[in-house]
Amino acid sequence: MLSKNKAKFIKSLRLKKFREESGCFAVEGSKSVLELIASDFEVQALACTESFRREHGPALKGKKFETIVCSPAELGAVSAFETNESALAVARMRTTRLPEPLHGPALALDGVRDPGNLGAIVRTADWYGISRILVSEDTTDFYNPKALQASMGSFCRVNAHYGNLESELARARLPVYAAGKGGKSVHDFAFRKDCILLLGNESRGISPALAKLVAAPIGIPGYGRAESLNVAAAAAVICDNYRRLTA
Amino acid sequence: MLSKNKAKFIKSLRLKKFREESGCFAVEGSKSVLELIASDFEVQALACTESFRREHGPALKGKKFETIVCSPAELGAVSAFETNESALAVARMRTTRLPEPLHGPALALDGVRDPGNLGAIVRTADWYGISRILVSEDTTDFYNPKALQASMGSFCRVNAHYGNLESELARARLPVYAAGKGGKSVHDFAFRKDCILLLGNESRGISPALAKLVAAPIGIPGYGRAESLNVAAAAAVICDNYRRLTA
Repeated sequence: MLSKNKAKFIKSLRLKKFREESGCFAVEGSKSVLELIASDFEVQALACTESFRREHGPALKGKKFETIVCSPAELGAVSAFETNESALAVARMRTTRLPEPLHGPALALDGVRDPGNLGAIVRTADWYGISRILVSEDTTDFYNPKALQASMGSFCRVNAHYGNLESELARARLPVYAAGKGGKSVHDFAFRKDCILLLGNESRGISPALAKLVAAPIGIPGYGRAESLNVAAAAAVICDNYRRLTA
Repeated sequence: MLSKNKAKFIKSLRLKKFREESGCFAVEGSKSVLELIASDFEVQALACTESFRREHGPALKGKKFETIVCSPAELGAVSAFETNESALAVARMRTTRLPEPLHGPALALDGVRDPGNLGAIVRTADWYGISRILVSEDTTDFYNPKALQASMGSFCRVNAHYGNLESELARARLPVYAAGKGGKSVHDFAFRKDCILLLGNESRGISPALAKLVAAPIGIPGYGRAESLNVAAAAAVICDNYRRLTA
């Protein structure tokens, strides 16, 4: 059973303020929880149903964290999402150092605000074997519950490095290619294999301070009348063409 | 000023039940409202701020619908989203007939449940000049507020045809290519220009009843460890390769 204090603590982790205070975050749902447990994140506690514990005994064997068995209703009461009735885990957030020198491909995000977009981009990065994302400070938090959920477990394998994007991009000394209007078509873009792929904010695109660091803009050919693509869709199209053209 | 009855009616349109009862839907935010007004949807009412009306006078000139000027606070109170403080419009839903014979490219969606994904797919279809989407009955509603918002106005140019996807795909007599594991790489897929691109449910993929109608599965080459791509990201990658290879 979940004590009142624990339930309150878990619920508090929906807010960045309390994640920063405690250094912890929460992950929900079987798939994400199992990926978390198998990763090198430091898991502190698992709250799960009896049937989850029985079904995933081997994955839980020998683990040091506290396991609290509770009812689906108890889990539902602390979950940020409607559909979680199996498991929830609390782990410590981590900050990984950006390797120096940085080798590409890496992504960079300038002010991506929607957690669903961030999570989808993390999942796309993982699909395309990209483990480093440089992230501006005004991008939504990596440990936001919606971002974690949208990443479908890929948050375990992709590292986000928050900081001043202008100085980080300058320091990386890699060509920066930015999604944007009027660029050379992504279909035959001359990517250097070692590079950074930059995506901008959902409304305003790349900020002027970063534009001067861009080696070349990448255009995604359009055939209809939409003004732009969703930023997570654009990220997927650019990563796909990058891999195709540099394979 | 918005009357209590009108405010209640607008708020009711967040639910499919009331959209079906009234035949109406609501659209929020400057960009979407302006696209709606410029489209051939039958707009019934516009609620907007004085500054929206002043700024967009030419777009509103000669229009027959009722315009209700209200405060940002009044608009905020009836809006489904936090950020709408400029305009909201109510229009009649429409059902467009699927052309016979259907010419491709068209998309087909089998049980896409997340409104954000549906909206992003509608936007992607519009970007790639695809105006027809065949949609299974268990796919989320086209007029869901989150789906409309995520489409960024593209709902005005893309038609969704809900129905029994099995019989609709059979009737279309076009090759159906489905996103799925183990298919031939999308990077050099032999698309027929006149075709249907099928995407499955976020968790279970394409349902078995449809699998037998698939001419060929399309694989998106992965380079990392994610199990799959988000369905809206997969749609963008497939549409992008389709256009590149059939241009």
